[in-house]
Amino acid sequence: VTAKTWLLTDVERDIYIDQIELGPREAGGSAQGYSVRKRRLRGGLRDGVDAVEVDTGALRFTLLPTRGMGLWRAEAGSLRLGWSSPVRGPVHPQFVPLMEPAGLGWLSGFDELLVRCGLESMGPPQFDDDGRLVHPLHGRIANQSAHRVEVAIDGDTGEIAVTGVVDEARLFHNKLRLTSTVRTRAGGTSLTITDEVTNLSARPGELELLYHINLGRPLLEPGAKLSVPLAALAPRTPRAAEGLAEWDSYGPAEPGFAEQVYFTQLHADAEGQTRALLRNARGSQGVSLRFNTRQLPWFVVWKSLEPDEDGYVTGLEPALNLPNSRSFEKQQGRVAVLAPGAAVRFDLELELHASPTGVERAQQAIDQLQAARPIIHDRPPQGWTAP
Amino acid sequence: VTAKTWLLTDVERDIYIDQIELGPREAGGSAQGYSVRKRRLRGGLRDGVDAVEVDTGALRFTLLPTRGMGLWRAEAGSLRLGWSSPVRGPVHPQFVPLMEPAGLGWLSGFDELLVRCGLESMGPPQFDDDGRLVHPLHGRIANQSAHRVEVAIDGDTGEIAVTGVVDEARLFHNKLRLTSTVRTRAGGTSLTITDEVTNLSARPGELELLYHINLGRPLLEPGAKLSVPLAALAPRTPRAAEGLAEWDSYGPAEPGFAEQVYFTQLHADAEGQTRALLRNARGSQGVSLRFNTRQLPWFVVWKSLEPDEDGYVTGLEPALNLPNSRSFEKQQGRVAVLAPGAAVRFDLELELHASPTGVERAQQAIDQLQAARPIIHDRPPQGWTAP
Amino acid sequence: VTAKTWLLTDVERDIYIDQIELGPREAGGSAQGYSVRKRRLRGGLRDGVDAVEVDTGALRFTLLPTRGMGLWRAEAGSLRLGWSSPVRGPVHPQFVPLMEPAGLGWLSGFDELLVRCGLESMGPPQFDDDGRLVHPLHGRIANQSAHRVEVAIDGDTGEIAVTGVVDEARLFHNKLRLTSTVRTRAGGTSLTITDEVTNLSARPGELELLYHINLGRPLLEPGAKLSVPLAALAPRTPRAAEGLAEWDSYGPAEPGFAEQVYFTQLHADAEGQTRALLRNARGSQGVSLRFNTRQLPWFVVWKSLEPDEDGYVTGLEPALNLPNSRSFEKQQGRVAVLAPGAAVRFDLELELHASPTGVERAQQAIDQLQAARPIIHDRPPQGWTAP
Repeated sequence: VTAKTWLLTDVERDIYIDQIELGPREAGGSAQGYSVRKRRLRGGLRDGVDAVEVDTGALRFTLLPTRGMGLWRAEAGSLRLGWSSPVRGPVHPQFVPLMEPAGLGWLSGFDELLVRCGLESMGPPQFDDDGRLVHPLHGRIANQSAHRVEVAIDGDTGEIAVTGVVDEARLFHNKLRLTSTVRTRAGGTSLTITDEVTNLSARPGELELLYHINLGRPLLEPGAKLSVPLAALAPRTPRAAEGLAEWDSYGPAEPGFAEQVYFTQLHADAEGQTRALLRNARGSQGVSLRFNTRQLPWFVVWKSLEPDEDGYVTGLEPALNLPNSRSFEKQQGRVAVLAPGAAVRFDLELELHASPTGVERAQQAIDQLQAARPIIHDRPPQGWTAP
Repeated sequence: VTAKTWLLTDVERDIYIDQIELGPREAGGSAQGYSVRKRRLRGGLRDGVDAVEVDTGALRFTLLPTRGMGLWRAEAGSLRLGWSSPVRGPVHPQFVPLMEPAGLGWLSGFDELLVRCGLESMGPPQFDDDGRLVHPLHGRIANQSAHRVEVAIDGDTGEIAVTGVVDEARLFHNKLRLTSTVRTRAGGTSLTITDEVTNLSARPGELELLYHINLGRPLLEPGAKLSVPLAALAPRTPRAAEGLAEWDSYGPAEPGFAEQVYFTQLHADAEGQTRALLRNARGSQGVSLRFNTRQLPWFVVWKSLEPDEDGYVTGLEPALNLPNSRSFEKQQGRVAVLAPGAAVRFDLELELHASPTGVERAQQAIDQLQAARPIIHDRPPQGWTAP
Repeated sequence: VTAKTWLLTDVERDIYIDQIELGPREAGGSAQGYSVRKRRLRGGLRDGVDAVEVDTGALRFTLLPTRGMGLWRAEAGSLRLGWSSPVRGPVHPQFVPLMEPAGLGWLSGFDELLVRCGLESMGPPQFDDDGRLVHPLHGRIANQSAHRVEVAIDGDTGEIAVTGVVDEARLFHNKLRLTSTVRTRAGGTSLTITDEVTNLSARPGELELLYHINLGRPLLEPGAKLSVPLAALAPRTPRAAEGLAEWDSYGPAEPGFAEQVYFTQLHADAEGQTRALLRNARGSQGVSLRFNTRQLPWFVVWKSLEPDEDGYVTGLEPALNLPNSRSFEKQQGRVAVLAPGAAVRFDLELELHASPTGVERAQQAIDQLQAARPIIHDRPPQGWTAP
């Protein structure tokens, strides 16, 4: 038995499957105990959102083709990843006023575990000389709907892959394509994301990208800790500088907590591989994030420790560039330019640790990468933060 | 037999019922002749709107969970309440450009009998110092979709209640929840609305609210009359002052009629209860509106007497504050501040009078409330209208 | 047997047919080999778009009630009309940020063979004195959904008519109705469009209108040629003037090709009928466009010869007025004013030529109309292009 594939959506060929459930019976082979289920959500702000739910037997997660192949939630046993947003998502793009004049409409759809910021732009909204919005907060890709969705299952190895293709394209503008494949395996507790961004145009294309990975309770709690092989760090703002000494640990919620953001660079192995670990206070559970600093040279930490009802959440954010205004990033040479037809690839792995053993092993791996003492800036170095 | 409940939508529990019809058979008990029907509208601008249609046997009305629990239409026998808007509604929020730069997009969805203006803001659009829209005309709540909808029926008493929960919330912003219950009874010709607005946030929340109740033909006609126990009144603009002498009566349609708005305060009984009556020219039919001046201290009258094709309509609008710019209302201390977790309640009753007897009785009740001669200002007193 | 009609959508009467297929069996009569199929598209950006597919046996085309009765594609044998837009359409209006502050959101939905620009405005976005968008690029009508759709088939003559009614209306604003009927015939290779725009309002209504008919490969190719009975022509911009000598022929794609637009007036017969022909390099295939210069006095030619991935396309655009800013057009007296209740009619015919014979005949008809030598301006005459 080799991998079988199911095409769930392909607008070119007029294919759309409203609902399907796939498992060992459909895939054949010897692997057992997993399922892939696709359905359309209904009601409230989620009305019309397509969801692909993958269950490995040990890990369950939900992908959102309607929201740029975002990752909504993941859980392994009692360990649930994600956060409780003031918005009850997942939110269909029809309810997200992305282009509202102040440029903050993106927040109306923000409730995923993993949401991509980009592709033409990310970071704060940017306006033209007449004060008109040009680039909305965190860009357009998270509110674009996939035009192709495919599931592949190898019934023998138990490998499961979900691929979605999402365009961010417009006549006379940037024409970028995201092809995202999320892979896991029957019985596994981790998932990998392989993203390829292709410039469809015969003109050069420009790319900004940040993976906004958002974690709240129960993992995030007072005493929770972030471990990374830190090379350098700077607070983005004076407000962030206030919390510099505790940048990698989390306190209790504070009503009116003003967000703190840290820009960091991490050590990596010879291949550029690095990792981050967020663990709870007791170290009994955690989540590891692996990525490559050659692909994603920055790692941004966002802390927004408001009470649950307002969002108690941290963002772990591997990034191609920094979330400053697009013009500043361009000036700093951090906006990637893709030649006509060129593609770049980004790999991420998320591993859930439901037991102390997993957490310890992840910590050891990070300790091994911690080559030298990090440089901690008490304010942003030249070129890191837009003035 | 006690009340049975049906959960039609609950996104938290992944419940969504596309279509259902409930009546004596489903509820049990002795009450007869009523029904509650839920369905999804299709086609045109209504595509995807969920409608809950209640029929008491004597009164029929339609609630719109997809439009913030607005009340679309109501009718009792030959008496139909509502108006003929230039927009063929009900309009799904996906077709309402609420955040268009000029801030008037709300009008593209405006065709209900009762639409709430609020919750963070209502009144004219407001812009920041750079001219960018911050608060759109009449706010966001009417274009938010309920994430929970429940029907309760007591088969013995014939009491019917439809409850919807709608959030107006966003990270870093106001987080208010509207829980609206509309009640009626088998055989009844009135409905009550009980709204509770809760501040979900751990920060103080700010609230503006106006019930925009819109009436056109056949009830509104030349010679139709509005009765209220008037305490004080002022025209909002010089244009409104032109019609001051006939502020409470309605003339024939005039092409190009420029709208007139009157701000009023009403007398009430010892509990704060007051009422308004709109009756047709002959006094043979009418509608009564009951509310509490402690909850809703203002009553705004809107006259827009254009020919039918452009909208021949009056708005009777009990309000927490006045429809001025939000900053002016704040300055005047009329924006309500809700403590973290706090809730405020608003009660409204709509009674349809299909016969002269009902109209007369309603008029008598108003006459009894008319304690003293009203104060009629010929221009807005200080603090009523934003300069 | 006389014509039978099927009402597919009528929001007034709560009628909506999700899917239907009509043919000789349903219509009765002797005509054979044709079909009319209505369905709802699913997935990607087309999710929720209603499509009416007409097949005469010799010609197939798709109408889009959800996009203002636009014509998506047409084909006759190996001759396919339409173009390959960077956007994978048809795009549901929910995914088109029409009112984004910069006013270019219309481009996110632009991929049809024929799209109407109007009705209140068309041409470049226009802003008020505060820099806020008032009129978005090419107006609203293409992103409005029809509230009434009807199919009529005469089973004997084989005549097929699809009628859609689309409103562009808002309280206090313009209230125009488009009633569009597209007719063809079993076995036919042409279609006619009869549009009526009615001013629903009791106030005068204002109308701008341009038919943006877009053609790409395979018909458009290096060596392809446009024939019209030219009376006068001017380049819109200096950039267009660069290509003046070859304004009616098409070269190969050039990466970064900046668009060229020509404003023209055509000769017509005694009834005002005129025609245009676009043919491929060999003259083996082509498409004819017939319209009336009394209804549509302008003919705009748009050339955007970028590589396929960016859009290799030409627009043949009969128009009521020129695509300048609305205020300039008004100043020039080219914005039509419709009296209350008044209607204007526009007729267009599209004929597909799948063989050289048809192309030749069309060319001869144009040659006969070419009464005198055209006037070619090397820059826009006074009043043609907004400064």
